[in-house]
Amino acid sequence: MYKKILVPLDGSERSTKALFHSVSLAQKYTAKITLMHVVPNLPPYVNTAVDRLGHIPQSIFDELMRNGKDMLDQYVSSISDKNIDTDKFIVMGQPADEILEKANQENYDLIVIGSRGLGEIKGYIMGSVSNRVSRHAPCPVLIVR
Amino acid sequence: MYKKILVPLDGSERSTKALFHSVSLAQKYTAKITLMHVVPNLPPYVNTAVDRLGHIPQSIFDELMRNGKDMLDQYVSSISDKNIDTDKFIVMGQPADEILEKANQENYDLIVIGSRGLGEIKGYIMGSVSNRVSRHAPCPVLIVR
Repeated sequence: MYKKILVPLDGSERSTKALFHSVSLAQKYTAKITLMHVVPNLPPYVNTAVDRLGHIPQSIFDELMRNGKDMLDQYVSSISDKNIDTDKFIVMGQPADEILEKANQENYDLIVIGSRGLGEIKGYIMGSVSNRVSRHAPCPVLIVR
Repeated sequence: MYKKILVPLDGSERSTKALFHSVSLAQKYTAKITLMHVVPNLPPYVNTAVDRLGHIPQSIFDELMRNGKDMLDQYVSSISDKNIDTDKFIVMGQPADEILEKANQENYDLIVIGSRGLGEIKGYIMGSVSNRVSRHAPCPVLIVR
């Protein structure tokens, strides 16, 4: 029933728990899991280094992406002994939109997502990503808390 | 990980699908599933037989409960060959509230619920039950569509 599982992760405790659930399901169903991280777009007012047009300078972009990749690598390492087929995907954007686009494009059978936490990056919260994902996803969504 | 699974059902196609998912999970995890139906409270304006105080006459109450029980029995029969430990529970009330109360009282590990359909009884819809359940549940919620 579940062969391709998408797991959006953001470094929060809840998303670590979501990963834990997805690993168990992947073992039971011999599924492949995609560990995904969305580096949230910085709103222009957050950082004075953002230029007047609201663009993020390349150096900041690079650093955000590098941090995100490091985090994903740590998640992958943390389950390397589980003998599960995994891949990883990182993108910058609006978390719920990017998760939904990925799910739509690649026919996932299940999304496993923490109930909160996505987008909670140092105090700016983009609304409840999991709620939006669960309302609009093309597949079942397991919300973990 | 999942030993007790709660499956709210309302006769909709989506809730049949939710049952299907819960059966698969129950088999994989050797879990017990509780098939639950909430007979939605009738708002006073729906039925002229509701008395002036807004109470449902006993005969209507009895019939609604009987119909609900029949539906639950059919669900139970439909999975009788799956060799799963099941029980059933029926109550009248506000669907999301009753589901949350049951989940809170009896420590379920997982709720499996259709993304729509609950409360869609002949045109009166009580809002999206699955959204409310997924926001307030004490345990993970799998939303099936």
